[in-house]
Amino acid sequence: MELNGVEIEDTFAEAFSLKMARVVITAANKRWAMVAAKEATGFGTSVIGCPAEAGIECLVPSDKTPDGRPGVAIIMCHPKKDGVKDQLLGRLGQCILPAPTTASFNGLETEEKLSIKLQFFGDGFQYETEVGGRKVWGIPMMEGDFIFEENYGVQKGVAGGNFFILAKNQMAALTAAENAVDAIYDVEGTITPFPGGIVASGSKVGSQYKFLMASANEKYCPTLKNKVEGTSIPKEVESVYEIVINGLDEESVKQATKIGIEASVKIPGVVKITAGNYGGDLGQYKINLHEILG
Amino acid sequence: MELNGVEIEDTFAEAFSLKMARVVITAANKRWAMVAAKEATGFGTSVIGCPAEAGIECLVPSDKTPDGRPGVAIIMCHPKKDGVKDQLLGRLGQCILPAPTTASFNGLETEEKLSIKLQFFGDGFQYETEVGGRKVWGIPMMEGDFIFEENYGVQKGVAGGNFFILAKNQMAALTAAENAVDAIYDVEGTITPFPGGIVASGSKVGSQYKFLMASANEKYCPTLKNKVEGTSIPKEVESVYEIVINGLDEESVKQATKIGIEASVKIPGVVKITAGNYGGDLGQYKINLHEILG
Amino acid sequence: MELNGVEIEDTFAEAFSLKMARVVITAANKRWAMVAAKEATGFGTSVIGCPAEAGIECLVPSDKTPDGRPGVAIIMCHPKKDGVKDQLLGRLGQCILPAPTTASFNGLETEEKLSIKLQFFGDGFQYETEVGGRKVWGIPMMEGDFIFEENYGVQKGVAGGNFFILAKNQMAALTAAENAVDAIYDVEGTITPFPGGIVASGSKVGSQYKFLMASANEKYCPTLKNKVEGTSIPKEVESVYEIVINGLDEESVKQATKIGIEASVKIPGVVKITAGNYGGDLGQYKINLHEILG
Amino acid sequence: MELNGVEIEDTFAEAFSLKMARVVITAANKRWAMVAAKEATGFGTSVIGCPAEAGIECLVPSDKTPDGRPGVAIIMCHPKKDGVKDQLLGRLGQCILPAPTTASFNGLETEEKLSIKLQFFGDGFQYETEVGGRKVWGIPMMEGDFIFEENYGVQKGVAGGNFFILAKNQMAALTAAENAVDAIYDVEGTITPFPGGIVASGSKVGSQYKFLMASANEKYCPTLKNKVEGTSIPKEVESVYEIVINGLDEESVKQATKIGIEASVKIPGVVKITAGNYGGDLGQYKINLHEILG
Repeated sequence: MELNGVEIEDTFAEAFSLKMARVVITAANKRWAMVAAKEATGFGTSVIGCPAEAGIECLVPSDKTPDGRPGVAIIMCHPKKDGVKDQLLGRLGQCILPAPTTASFNGLETEEKLSIKLQFFGDGFQYETEVGGRKVWGIPMMEGDFIFEENYGVQKGVAGGNFFILAKNQMAALTAAENAVDAIYDVEGTITPFPGGIVASGSKVGSQYKFLMASANEKYCPTLKNKVEGTSIPKEVESVYEIVINGLDEESVKQATKIGIEASVKIPGVVKITAGNYGGDLGQYKINLHEILG
Repeated sequence: MELNGVEIEDTFAEAFSLKMARVVITAANKRWAMVAAKEATGFGTSVIGCPAEAGIECLVPSDKTPDGRPGVAIIMCHPKKDGVKDQLLGRLGQCILPAPTTASFNGLETEEKLSIKLQFFGDGFQYETEVGGRKVWGIPMMEGDFIFEENYGVQKGVAGGNFFILAKNQMAALTAAENAVDAIYDVEGTITPFPGGIVASGSKVGSQYKFLMASANEKYCPTLKNKVEGTSIPKEVESVYEIVINGLDEESVKQATKIGIEASVKIPGVVKITAGNYGGDLGQYKINLHEILG
Repeated sequence: MELNGVEIEDTFAEAFSLKMARVVITAANKRWAMVAAKEATGFGTSVIGCPAEAGIECLVPSDKTPDGRPGVAIIMCHPKKDGVKDQLLGRLGQCILPAPTTASFNGLETEEKLSIKLQFFGDGFQYETEVGGRKVWGIPMMEGDFIFEENYGVQKGVAGGNFFILAKNQMAALTAAENAVDAIYDVEGTITPFPGGIVASGSKVGSQYKFLMASANEKYCPTLKNKVEGTSIPKEVESVYEIVINGLDEESVKQATKIGIEASVKIPGVVKITAGNYGGDLGQYKINLHEILG
Repeated sequence: MELNGVEIEDTFAEAFSLKMARVVITAANKRWAMVAAKEATGFGTSVIGCPAEAGIECLVPSDKTPDGRPGVAIIMCHPKKDGVKDQLLGRLGQCILPAPTTASFNGLETEEKLSIKLQFFGDGFQYETEVGGRKVWGIPMMEGDFIFEENYGVQKGVAGGNFFILAKNQMAALTAAENAVDAIYDVEGTITPFPGGIVASGSKVGSQYKFLMASANEKYCPTLKNKVEGTSIPKEVESVYEIVINGLDEESVKQATKIGIEASVKIPGVVKITAGNYGGDLGQYKINLHEILG
């Protein structure tokens, strides 16, 4: 299969389930909502080594937020529900509550809710009130009062959706990856948790070292293409980037994969798109490239 | 004392010591160095609830970096040396190694070094090489080879330097705070670890709840000024922001405090500058406002 | 009338007609489309002293552009059709054609078209081709081939829609103005041509100097409120910003005015909203604040 | 000659003289100074088709500006002194005076000065005052008072310094160009006036059309390399970008050329650097690549 002259390998991405919450941060303006969202989602690329996987989903316009101010939606992911709760407590308490002009609202309507008790920061001066039809806490602080919704929905989502961009040159691969991330940004319910949305270091499970559960995938390392047997790197390829996608459901991850691939093949120098899997035995979800692009 | 017509209270900021490391991240261009630095320093405002305190110190121009590419210096802080080591391993491994085009170098010449063993990610294909006169690892990855220095200096630094900006209006206070952070950005060896460099929620030690070791400082809450006894909020003040400064030594924190205050009093509507302390019994450092501005 | 506790004066904005064109600039990614759009719309605040009024209307997602790449729509305005043509020739030729990876397409389906003959830059090597069902020119250049649509629609639009934000403090007024501009950005068919979308220097027609056709409106100058008779500045107001809106039709300017006012009154410290007019004798359009907000 | 493995052609850039002024714009913070500077320098790439060549030189820290606020220095260029004066009047009056919180100061100490009479905008309410030891005008406006220095230095500068980046792929060429511009930004006294600092459309003097004085240089068009005789495009090159540099003197343009080339050869995929000239008969300045890099 070819798209814009670029080969699309007949393979699939293998994805896993994680528990996910979605928080809508509002602020006096877009800029401050974004500053808070970036702090709250930092150190959040992969649960292999970060306390959570986290990212910015989208801007939420004023007429869609509970308090009528500009907003940013973030998604936080963890293997366990309690892990999501811990991370919400830590990241909302340390990165949103102290951020200028922000408020924090639940962004996921699920039956089950996690109760995040930041109100006690008010040390007795906190009060219950209503904003946009929601019961919230008002917590007096130095800047004024912080508005905070206590209960956050949590659900099973899909993590580790992915595709690889192989290109003739590192800068072509990188620009294509950047373009893919830009495009995916418009797909509701998805995040690309790595730095700038891009992974420079796609890995395999395991390593020759007992203590290391993931390591560089040498078959996808361009500088090893003449040194390892069975390399997956075509002759003309000098660089590969991976896009990793987490989403609230399988459909949104599929849509993001499709949109992302379509955006990346527009960049001159991209020669092939493929995806990462473990033979299909580990993950619950298989996202077939030809199927979603067909 | 007055500065640009703004009252400077005769008081001091009380600061503490934390262990600090400094990492120089380089990349193909400034933008990608910055993207990686932001991811690596996120979820890093206060060790009360974050795994580290972390922030961007400054841009490092190409002619000052080991590999001659544009760089960004970040500082990571933790109460214990082992904590700094854990955080370097996690944040370099999960936020810098996977970020497009980056390399990672030690930015602190101290005798003691922390060994961060990311090279094993290479799964046997890693190799030793030299860049800019430094012994580094080359780790083959999907994008190409990741260059990584293994040993990072660590030293005692000064954390929790601070001042408060009291203004007639929330937006005046916020713009003054923003301006202070912009100015402090130019002071070598310092970071402002909170979101956008600003704290909206200055706290006191302890609370009425046993489980909560820090809570809103009600004497500095403008919306409580008529409700609590002994409020520190003048009649005309409607909002307060705090700037928190960590630095590699006391001198740099003093300099940042001075520069930050001078920048904030330029904003119309600011009426008073003060600082936070605990009577001087808890912290090792006392930064007297009148002294540094005198 | 009050909105969020802010007085809305019972008055109207007086607006004028200008000829307008709309260009869709695409590029390899959003960032470069935006860089080109900013250069092309610079020095374009008011036809009183600039060669055109120009601004960025909105981002155009890949699936809405002729070449399937990310885009930015800009609007250019001039009193005369020939003026629009001159400005398109100059700004497309000098700011879009030389910008990295860009292409330029007509963004306005009108019967009348202006023919902009940039193809001759190809010096005989230009060729006709088709992109997204449109007849376009391909012009070989250093970076590769520049794709350019020759004919651009032009129509009568509405310029000078406006409202004033009066606040207790300059930073409150400015943040409110910034927030208004952010919100208006989402209204299709409109631009806010001043720097950052904001006017610090609202003017009146004429002056005491023969050579000067517009000057500061002293009745709206806060620092003159105790010096001029008939000041329009309430006692508690220290700063005023004006938002000027140009749009492709009256409806879009009304919508932008409404959205902008709603966003600005959310900022603490704003005390009054009003609008600028010349008694209704000069402009073709009257945009009544109470009517659009009612 | 080779630099980082990239061939540097033994040739020179031919540059011309233009008259130049330098303005220091200050504002409440860096961000607003930058917004104003961008508006004021827009539509300013080449005097062939723009009213001026203009660009942002650098940030000016608070302790180096007359009013102690953050600043941005811009440079404006025109073949004639009167042209510089017209452009200062237009661009300061329409893009700086109306921009939020800005002030405007002369940034060039020359004997000859251009008098820019914006003070009349005050319509009689303007007043003389002193800021940072300079005589300035205070002009009451809606936001508060605008501070404006009337007299601006003007001098002969060097325009059209340049080099070309030839790469295997468009994205490699573009990233290298971007990196060069980033690096040049740190060279005092220089600007790169094109969009994002980069020229996609390097031209030759003249064309086959009488009415067109500059056209695409077909010998540097990669898509024509097999169609024109005497192409300058090596077999493996698919894209070329040009960096154009204007500076206050020859030395600064040389330094910027050197720094820019050194930054661009760091990007993988760049294969050759050369420069544009007209045989040396047209321009006053010859900037020899081997000499400055030697």
